[in-house]
Amino acid sequence: MQELVEEAVTLDAGDPLAGWREEFVIADPELAYLDGNSLGMPTKRAFERVEQVMRDDWAAGLIRSWDHWLDWPQAVGAELAPLIGAEPHEVVVHDSTSVNLFQLITAAVGLRPDRRVIAVDPADFPTDRYIVESIAAARDLEVRAGFDQLDDVAVAVRSMVDYRSAEIVDVATEAARAREAGAVVVWDLSHAAGLLPVRVHEVGIDLAVGCTYKFLNGGPGAPAFTFVRADLIEQLDEPFHGWFAQTDQFAMGDTFTPRADIGRFRIGTPSILSLVAAQAGIEVSAAAGIEAIRAKSVELGRFGLRCCDALGLSTSTPRDDDRRGGHLCVHEPDARRIVAEMTEHDRVLADFREPDVVRLGCSPLTTRFADVARATIAVANRR
Amino acid sequence: MQELVEEAVTLDAGDPLAGWREEFVIADPELAYLDGNSLGMPTKRAFERVEQVMRDDWAAGLIRSWDHWLDWPQAVGAELAPLIGAEPHEVVVHDSTSVNLFQLITAAVGLRPDRRVIAVDPADFPTDRYIVESIAAARDLEVRAGFDQLDDVAVAVRSMVDYRSAEIVDVATEAARAREAGAVVVWDLSHAAGLLPVRVHEVGIDLAVGCTYKFLNGGPGAPAFTFVRADLIEQLDEPFHGWFAQTDQFAMGDTFTPRADIGRFRIGTPSILSLVAAQAGIEVSAAAGIEAIRAKSVELGRFGLRCCDALGLSTSTPRDDDRRGGHLCVHEPDARRIVAEMTEHDRVLADFREPDVVRLGCSPLTTRFADVARATIAVANRR
Repeated sequence: MQELVEEAVTLDAGDPLAGWREEFVIADPELAYLDGNSLGMPTKRAFERVEQVMRDDWAAGLIRSWDHWLDWPQAVGAELAPLIGAEPHEVVVHDSTSVNLFQLITAAVGLRPDRRVIAVDPADFPTDRYIVESIAAARDLEVRAGFDQLDDVAVAVRSMVDYRSAEIVDVATEAARAREAGAVVVWDLSHAAGLLPVRVHEVGIDLAVGCTYKFLNGGPGAPAFTFVRADLIEQLDEPFHGWFAQTDQFAMGDTFTPRADIGRFRIGTPSILSLVAAQAGIEVSAAAGIEAIRAKSVELGRFGLRCCDALGLSTSTPRDDDRRGGHLCVHEPDARRIVAEMTEHDRVLADFREPDVVRLGCSPLTTRFADVARATIAVANRR
Repeated sequence: MQELVEEAVTLDAGDPLAGWREEFVIADPELAYLDGNSLGMPTKRAFERVEQVMRDDWAAGLIRSWDHWLDWPQAVGAELAPLIGAEPHEVVVHDSTSVNLFQLITAAVGLRPDRRVIAVDPADFPTDRYIVESIAAARDLEVRAGFDQLDDVAVAVRSMVDYRSAEIVDVATEAARAREAGAVVVWDLSHAAGLLPVRVHEVGIDLAVGCTYKFLNGGPGAPAFTFVRADLIEQLDEPFHGWFAQTDQFAMGDTFTPRADIGRFRIGTPSILSLVAAQAGIEVSAAAGIEAIRAKSVELGRFGLRCCDALGLSTSTPRDDDRRGGHLCVHEPDARRIVAEMTEHDRVLADFREPDVVRLGCSPLTTRFADVARATIAVANRR
């Protein structure tokens, strides 16, 4: 174990991203926080911006501040865009992942009215599965488990990174296969955005949603995002028709005429306080650079696997760097107890996931190699 | 004009709610802010709570804070409940008015599968009309303008207070008429909540949504609320099936089993920063007391009408106290220019609404009689 600790010290000393921890409010520097993939740490900028928006915009500017707030969901979307390889006018930050999934899947179904099947991974994150089932039930569509057969599928809903194992789907291959079969794919980038360069256009992602409170450090319940390939925007009829999607919003006109730009996917009044905190987190990730973030993520994963091997821990996290996302998945029959005890006694925060998973999330901007060493050692000690 | 100013001074001196301005962050005490019905002023408590949540919960507590955050949408709903006469377990604060309208109208349509009509006021707020039309189109239902004929209507969507004229609907009579006709009514309480005692149970409101950023001073884009009469909760199938509505949320189970309580209407991860600001605003209104707020609102309206009459301004705001909500609606052919000039030169903030309305919103906890005098005088001077 001492060797792992020493190796971690060396790796941290040589980490080109180590300085980015200075951008975060770190209440307990001794805490090993392995839950940044569930709730990222707050940026100092988020504290400053939220306070500033409350003081200058809300208290002083009052209603006048809507003059600039109105654009924020798209302005923040434009800041997020390069992190996933999108163009600035293809992303909007709004509502929640669940609402955005409902919206985009429904709109996507409208692209293939001739087909009656929605395909989803039965092991995908719950909200993705439940929402698919709800949409299918309302429209009398069939839900198919898995993506083996796509030639009668209207819409496939897929996560790029598995929320349990951290396995990365080979998006380029899968997107090409779906396109060939005539199926529209809605990608959930929640466990990918801010962690790895998604490169939506290179890999053939047309439609995607994702969240900003994980690797993008946007804050608890920060608004999610919607990506739509530019030339598809006007083809999609989203299901809400909220007044923020209306072309001339303040004309309060009789007829809903959806905006022709990505603002088409907005719904109601955006949560400005949550949005500005998200903006701060997105800005920090963009400044650090997604390639550098991914490079450190790969190293954290390699080191974590070395720790698991050295300690005799069982993991289902892929060994292949290209297939591994941002967390380590350690299987322990007593995972729930282990996670609770680490929280209580070891100053190590990790996540328990049913049935037997200790999930160690590595957020490259805040996670140290030393945290990975301490966490895996703690798991081993508490087996 | 001098008489109006002097009367305002006397009224402000005798105003039992005057002290509540101390609870607010008022950047410019000389500003006459008549837009509190569009964006309420910030409470000092909102500043404190947001800062505290960011520091203690997000930065220090990190993921552990979800242990208490999880309940907040319902806890804040319980604080809001008495302001509309609901029981604590009948209200949840979440998402936006537009999303909540979509959700509740869709669920209400499911209560009357035998009927094919949704009725809406063609002069209602845009998002209400657009969303009704979207739901109707997706389900091949007919949209009917107005509420004269209800005997084949599945769902009627109505605002309690008109967003332009401030006219209050006679809810008890209209709710009884709808019930007799077998129509379900979804009420939009956006311009009523925090301004007058809605008394949902007394007047026969079964289903309602509303916003918290107007009279409840919840902040820009603060989450909205959903009210469902307790015995109807389990009868409603809401359309999202997001994971926060799941009975045993973290079991991540295969099947969606909606919660039996008001949490059934939750969708995705709640925006905690926006929610805590809303909570602060709701708390202040609840502490001041909705009856006292309404009493001052009536006096503000009476005084505003006296001002309009004395100044020769044309208003469509009801003279009957029982029919008048919280704002004054002054008709001026050049309303847009007048509002812009008042902002620029008079330190008076009001709202322009198409086609010819200067809307003077009176928020009882922050609006002074002097503000009403200054605003109406400014309109008269700039005609």
